[in-house]
Amino acid sequence: MASQDSFRIEYDTFGELKVPNDKYYGAQTVRSTMNFKIGGVSERMPVQVIRAFGILKRAAAEVNQDYGLDPKIANAIIKAADEVSEGKLNDHFPLVVWQTGSGTQTNMNVNEVISNRAIEIMGGKLGSKDPVHPNDHVNKSQSSNDTFPTAMHIAAAQEVNEVLLPGLQKLQDALEAKSKEFSQIIKIGRTHTQDAVPLTLGQEFSAYVQQIKYGVARIKSAMPRVYELAAGGTAVGTGLNTRIGFAEKVAAKVSSLTGLPFITAPNKFEALAAHDALVELSGAMNTVACSLMKIANDIRFLGSGPRSGLGELILPENEPGSSIMPGRKVNPTQCEAVTMVAAQVMGNHVAVTVGGSNGHFELNVFKPMIIKNVLNSARLLGDVSVSFTDNCVVGIQANTERINKLMNESLMLVTALNPHIGYDKAAKIAKTAHKEGTTLKEAAIKLGFLTSEQFDQWVKPKDMLGPQ
Amino acid sequence: MASQDSFRIEYDTFGELKVPNDKYYGAQTVRSTMNFKIGGVSERMPVQVIRAFGILKRAAAEVNQDYGLDPKIANAIIKAADEVSEGKLNDHFPLVVWQTGSGTQTNMNVNEVISNRAIEIMGGKLGSKDPVHPNDHVNKSQSSNDTFPTAMHIAAAQEVNEVLLPGLQKLQDALEAKSKEFSQIIKIGRTHTQDAVPLTLGQEFSAYVQQIKYGVARIKSAMPRVYELAAGGTAVGTGLNTRIGFAEKVAAKVSSLTGLPFITAPNKFEALAAHDALVELSGAMNTVACSLMKIANDIRFLGSGPRSGLGELILPENEPGSSIMPGRKVNPTQCEAVTMVAAQVMGNHVAVTVGGSNGHFELNVFKPMIIKNVLNSARLLGDVSVSFTDNCVVGIQANTERINKLMNESLMLVTALNPHIGYDKAAKIAKTAHKEGTTLKEAAIKLGFLTSEQFDQWVKPKDMLGPQ
Amino acid sequence: MASQDSFRIEYDTFGELKVPNDKYYGAQTVRSTMNFKIGGVSERMPVQVIRAFGILKRAAAEVNQDYGLDPKIANAIIKAADEVSEGKLNDHFPLVVWQTGSGTQTNMNVNEVISNRAIEIMGGKLGSKDPVHPNDHVNKSQSSNDTFPTAMHIAAAQEVNEVLLPGLQKLQDALEAKSKEFSQIIKIGRTHTQDAVPLTLGQEFSAYVQQIKYGVARIKSAMPRVYELAAGGTAVGTGLNTRIGFAEKVAAKVSSLTGLPFITAPNKFEALAAHDALVELSGAMNTVACSLMKIANDIRFLGSGPRSGLGELILPENEPGSSIMPGRKVNPTQCEAVTMVAAQVMGNHVAVTVGGSNGHFELNVFKPMIIKNVLNSARLLGDVSVSFTDNCVVGIQANTERINKLMNESLMLVTALNPHIGYDKAAKIAKTAHKEGTTLKEAAIKLGFLTSEQFDQWVKPKDMLGPQ
Amino acid sequence: MASQDSFRIEYDTFGELKVPNDKYYGAQTVRSTMNFKIGGVSERMPVQVIRAFGILKRAAAEVNQDYGLDPKIANAIIKAADEVSEGKLNDHFPLVVWQTGSGTQTNMNVNEVISNRAIEIMGGKLGSKDPVHPNDHVNKSQSSNDTFPTAMHIAAAQEVNEVLLPGLQKLQDALEAKSKEFSQIIKIGRTHTQDAVPLTLGQEFSAYVQQIKYGVARIKSAMPRVYELAAGGTAVGTGLNTRIGFAEKVAAKVSSLTGLPFITAPNKFEALAAHDALVELSGAMNTVACSLMKIANDIRFLGSGPRSGLGELILPENEPGSSIMPGRKVNPTQCEAVTMVAAQVMGNHVAVTVGGSNGHFELNVFKPMIIKNVLNSARLLGDVSVSFTDNCVVGIQANTERINKLMNESLMLVTALNPHIGYDKAAKIAKTAHKEGTTLKEAAIKLGFLTSEQFDQWVKPKDMLGPQ
Repeated sequence: MASQDSFRIEYDTFGELKVPNDKYYGAQTVRSTMNFKIGGVSERMPVQVIRAFGILKRAAAEVNQDYGLDPKIANAIIKAADEVSEGKLNDHFPLVVWQTGSGTQTNMNVNEVISNRAIEIMGGKLGSKDPVHPNDHVNKSQSSNDTFPTAMHIAAAQEVNEVLLPGLQKLQDALEAKSKEFSQIIKIGRTHTQDAVPLTLGQEFSAYVQQIKYGVARIKSAMPRVYELAAGGTAVGTGLNTRIGFAEKVAAKVSSLTGLPFITAPNKFEALAAHDALVELSGAMNTVACSLMKIANDIRFLGSGPRSGLGELILPENEPGSSIMPGRKVNPTQCEAVTMVAAQVMGNHVAVTVGGSNGHFELNVFKPMIIKNVLNSARLLGDVSVSFTDNCVVGIQANTERINKLMNESLMLVTALNPHIGYDKAAKIAKTAHKEGTTLKEAAIKLGFLTSEQFDQWVKPKDMLGPQ
Repeated sequence: MASQDSFRIEYDTFGELKVPNDKYYGAQTVRSTMNFKIGGVSERMPVQVIRAFGILKRAAAEVNQDYGLDPKIANAIIKAADEVSEGKLNDHFPLVVWQTGSGTQTNMNVNEVISNRAIEIMGGKLGSKDPVHPNDHVNKSQSSNDTFPTAMHIAAAQEVNEVLLPGLQKLQDALEAKSKEFSQIIKIGRTHTQDAVPLTLGQEFSAYVQQIKYGVARIKSAMPRVYELAAGGTAVGTGLNTRIGFAEKVAAKVSSLTGLPFITAPNKFEALAAHDALVELSGAMNTVACSLMKIANDIRFLGSGPRSGLGELILPENEPGSSIMPGRKVNPTQCEAVTMVAAQVMGNHVAVTVGGSNGHFELNVFKPMIIKNVLNSARLLGDVSVSFTDNCVVGIQANTERINKLMNESLMLVTALNPHIGYDKAAKIAKTAHKEGTTLKEAAIKLGFLTSEQFDQWVKPKDMLGPQ
Repeated sequence: MASQDSFRIEYDTFGELKVPNDKYYGAQTVRSTMNFKIGGVSERMPVQVIRAFGILKRAAAEVNQDYGLDPKIANAIIKAADEVSEGKLNDHFPLVVWQTGSGTQTNMNVNEVISNRAIEIMGGKLGSKDPVHPNDHVNKSQSSNDTFPTAMHIAAAQEVNEVLLPGLQKLQDALEAKSKEFSQIIKIGRTHTQDAVPLTLGQEFSAYVQQIKYGVARIKSAMPRVYELAAGGTAVGTGLNTRIGFAEKVAAKVSSLTGLPFITAPNKFEALAAHDALVELSGAMNTVACSLMKIANDIRFLGSGPRSGLGELILPENEPGSSIMPGRKVNPTQCEAVTMVAAQVMGNHVAVTVGGSNGHFELNVFKPMIIKNVLNSARLLGDVSVSFTDNCVVGIQANTERINKLMNESLMLVTALNPHIGYDKAAKIAKTAHKEGTTLKEAAIKLGFLTSEQFDQWVKPKDMLGPQ
Repeated sequence: MASQDSFRIEYDTFGELKVPNDKYYGAQTVRSTMNFKIGGVSERMPVQVIRAFGILKRAAAEVNQDYGLDPKIANAIIKAADEVSEGKLNDHFPLVVWQTGSGTQTNMNVNEVISNRAIEIMGGKLGSKDPVHPNDHVNKSQSSNDTFPTAMHIAAAQEVNEVLLPGLQKLQDALEAKSKEFSQIIKIGRTHTQDAVPLTLGQEFSAYVQQIKYGVARIKSAMPRVYELAAGGTAVGTGLNTRIGFAEKVAAKVSSLTGLPFITAPNKFEALAAHDALVELSGAMNTVACSLMKIANDIRFLGSGPRSGLGELILPENEPGSSIMPGRKVNPTQCEAVTMVAAQVMGNHVAVTVGGSNGHFELNVFKPMIIKNVLNSARLLGDVSVSFTDNCVVGIQANTERINKLMNESLMLVTALNPHIGYDKAAKIAKTAHKEGTTLKEAAIKLGFLTSEQFDQWVKPKDMLGPQ
């Protein structure tokens, strides 16, 4: 390709445009960069969408060949599309999310890049649209209105399967291992943030395991509808200008290329006009965010201290402590990243919801915004699960000395005396201990309600861990 | 019962309290009304929760009898609990949602009402706690911490099955009937709110059918986790002070009483400490809200007019028109109720999400707020679906004259000429027609590109409704 | 009025309707109850809106009299409207929020009730519309489209001034008193939930004071736009069918009747088509909700215990403790009510936002939903502030023994030794103390870095409370 | 600086780390990149925060010099800090938002970069911390806990003043110009999406002007609290280890450097522990998002067509139309970008709200997430306002032919006949015209109620534009 500072002149119906010679994109992409100066580089269309388009365009080229597209052209398109899906051409996709709400300009960006790269492969001249035309060949049997939602679903499904689910699974496994490791450690329970009856630390962690396990199930239960592809619906869902069978074949090709169970959407009108499937997926991620917020909050509070907190957990030290305070100050920074991600996912979900509810007639035009937020949530939740696991969960230690101390000092154990000395005497013991700052045992003996041996025999936390 | 203006004196550990003689509740309920003057009557605990508590308390009494509770007491409790679940004692539940976050006070309200009613049945004295004690008998083997979430799940599951799902199903059926009725009416499509290629009105409605159908599926896919009951977990999830088998038996009884597939939660710690299952259900309802917003918006815009709107649909007149403007002004009021409900459900969902994410340790203490919002969303979505169906959807008529006129005037039909005269001539026809305000046919003939017969032969909207 | 089980027959353009004889409302109200069976009694239009309508209708009648309305009729309307604003006729307003999005049916409900009550006052026959016609007289110079938003603003402004601001002010005052009371109590600070350098408990509470103080300022800064009234805009904002000066005079009357600085909206088109002013107010309340969530969370965590929590604050006991656990278990139930309300307000805000963003053309039709949520947020925030103040804040005691113990045990005080013995030796002391579970002083002396006297002289928490 | 593939070895308390030789950052930055692999490059700390840190560090160095910092060191820091604030060193800030919730690692990243660059300026060795130490000199009298929130406020205030307010002002001006341009064009009003009485197109646009004008006011009313800076509060708000007067002087310097009215926060405890000021600002932006959603929706619907829509506005063509449909298909792509941004801002606001509500004790640890969302909202709203203005609003033309046609055909004009022939006859005219598809005039004459001349005299839309 030519040097960076040279341009070629291309035309659209509005006049001539300068296209950088080292870029495969064309006039429509340049036009969009001029009309949508919104947010800058960090607001570009997510690369996962570009990658998904590469897969889709390859699949479409293969199917179009079945329906008569010149194999030479098809092969060049396939090669170029593969480079797109492999991320080799990411620099050629400068458009931001804040463009047309159908994603038309990104579809054209893809068409232009693939056609020009295919032209180059076939020895043609960039920008000539010959022998590979961006519309007639790369976009054949397609419309932005069906390709963009198809790319949305491919991108979301891949991010879920490659990042989100593995991340959650890893976290679930690590929490499960901790739950087993801590199965014999009896600790004070806390309800209303107040002392309550005991449970094991393993039981406490088992709730976290259950939350993540169900989180995985929630994500998976949303996927069948994400695996439905709009391709074949073209402009309004009817499939005008495409061929009978095209939709099914493209879905099968995409499924084969990705290893994911994509099928053609049973109702293309719904697939273009609404994005309920992504609102649903976002809702599942929102639930996972709630779970993570709960777990990370618990862990940082249980690990609070070192002297003035609850101090039941020892969290791994990952960074130097405070520069101003010498000695041990270990901040639960991984928990903080988790809870910040959780808040973001809740916010993203509202954006997706608002966008999803505002479709009109045959097309929802909040598509780029919706997919940006869905991908962001999936990526952040997946990544933070891995980070949290590796840098926090696996290294959590029980501070057994502290746990035992709090357990033994607890006034709630008095509950175990009810059947032996009655509620009233038990309450008197608890109140005396509270007032005098002693242990229950000390108070009980002092009050003369029972002997030291009886106390030890009757007050056994490990007998309080389940029904009888 | 005694007259309304007389009181009996009851005591709690803080002193004496006046309890109205015509009320079954007791000291703890009165105490709560004094401590939580928040929001007034309209903020009372939803009756569905009270009803669910009636079912739960009956089930618990039956199981407790298996484990040795005096059958006479059990029977009185069962009778009283039935009255609660039948709504006969609703006036005896004055507490608001904004109380303790565990719902303890409502659990005690239920215990007090049932014990006093049972005492009455057995000929005892109200407030005497004899022979039926609110804690020892009615709350036996239970804690607020497991009964309240159990009642939450029962109430949510019943509202979903009795109101939400039937409402959605009714709406789906009505939309499906309309989709079939309109299957032969070809109309202009609209994307980006702009004219696009045609589809049938039936196809357009089929998208709505699909949205609601999937909405039903979404709700149903959230239910397995809602059918899990916390009962048997008692204070922190361990099941302390309950009996082995109690949890399973209570779930089975509740299932039998309600006809819904309730089971005991596999992990009681999760069931007390988190409410992910209700966040998930709320998320499913949030998706349904998006669907309804889209559908109602479409229908009101398609029915806009009578002269200056799109005018493709004729919506039923349900109320007198404007008092200031004589003649026909039919407002799409049902659509407005639908979209207002949709907005409310989206808001409720955020409240549920915030509450669901903020549990600490062994107990989430946003329980009353969470269930209030979940029940509100279910009820409103269900009711508005029925109202929308009965008062709008079933009466929608296609304004075929208007639909045909728009279709025939549309410039987008020119697409059909591409294969016959080429894109450039086709574009020229469209531009001429647009500029001169004529039909495509008039422009085409004027430009001499084809004959009237050719136009009629080539431009057939019904050939544009699917792939070839 | 006649007995409850008798009906009178009224007519609208759709036919005859049975109107209960003991009700002042008429045909249009009955029609609405038939068409909008959504949500039931708890979803009725808030009484504050009805009250506000009473004020508005009185003001309009007075102004209409200036413009020629028969004084006898005007006086009867004024008397009836006063009864509405005094809440005497609340039973006559059965309509739910989920009706037409312009609130037309509630406006007509008001017109019907006032006209019938005025007819009764003048000795006429209910339902006769003579001598006081609901439209021609009660609604004179008005439209639902301008009266409903006017009532929204009146209701919101009153709730803010009568409930929300007094509640917040009361809480601010109570927190300020505590801040002063606690000004000499030095305690350990906590950042990242971890021990940090000291501050006074008074300083800690001063942050809460500042938050509420600014909350009051935030609410107030939103009010100027809430004080703008739409009245006079009639159907689309032009003021068709009203009189020059009517708008200004009505606003002045409403201002005089309420004692609040209402003015006529400078742009009536905006006042009908958008509800940005209420979205803004809701946003201010959302910020207050964040403040309250923070404060209530802090207080419950600082009051956690009695043995296994942070235990720095002693919260007042308001209810009996646990029925299962004898002795002292004081749950922070007021904090729980506060945080539940906060979550609800955040959810309400999203509902208001969605409704506010979805206006179309000359009229936003999410009016009833918007005002319901705004009023709910104002009421709940105001009420819970009072409840929290009375039942929690004023009774908070510092657990000085515990606070001192944590302070003295803290390793972070070592920071004070840096200038005397250097960071490295200071760190060694902290690490030794942490490892061996001793105090800093013990570790310092053991390591031989300083004397007991030096430690006491150098490590003075009260020197760490501000810049030097 | 050295070549890109070489490293220097630095140490933190956890061991040695490889730092790229061409980077100014040090060990703590590298450590963070290893511990927080979350989200990738697009999730980096916004450059506006980095820029703000440059300003703050310069200000602090100047003030520290007043308090005795070696002028040579201060000058080097100032020079390096200027390079940071000028964006020259952006490549040296690799950290993501999802790190410690206090932003500590970004503060250290800044300290490391400035100290190393200052060392370089003074001829020292990178990584040597000599003669400019990242903590002792660059961070002097500061803590992450007060610098990060200070940078948040500086960044937010600058983005608001440089991007958001100018963007909104530009849009307001353009809308105002259109409102004046369209002041004589009378058109049909629409309420409930249904035909209503007339107004001018200028009046319709005046509502948009008012919304944006108030939006500007809303943003500005939130700023006083954003102009408060936390600097001087250090670790917990007490100002430990800083000097009396430092806080005020730093705020003054920042104010002078930025030209914005920053002051020191009156309560530093609140400034660290809560971010209510940014929640408030986000709430103001949320309101603006509602306004923009409304306006952009109106404009795209009013511009819908070309044949089958409302067609009252002609929106500028900015891109080629559809590739499949020849001729004129102009999509309202700018409106779509606006509405997508609006949805995003609503979502961002929820994320900010959740983060803002979850602070604990002396520090809110959702800082990076909060500022990311606030900056994103400000930037997107500002940019999209400019884009919308330049590419849509200024080019909007009234389709007067269409507007007149709809106006004249409208049945609602019949309202004007009420005073002349009575409501009943007027209604009969309207119904006849509706039924027979004729104009009112035709129907009126046919029915013999009035003459053509009378109709023209009595039915004058321009007399319907205001009160009488």
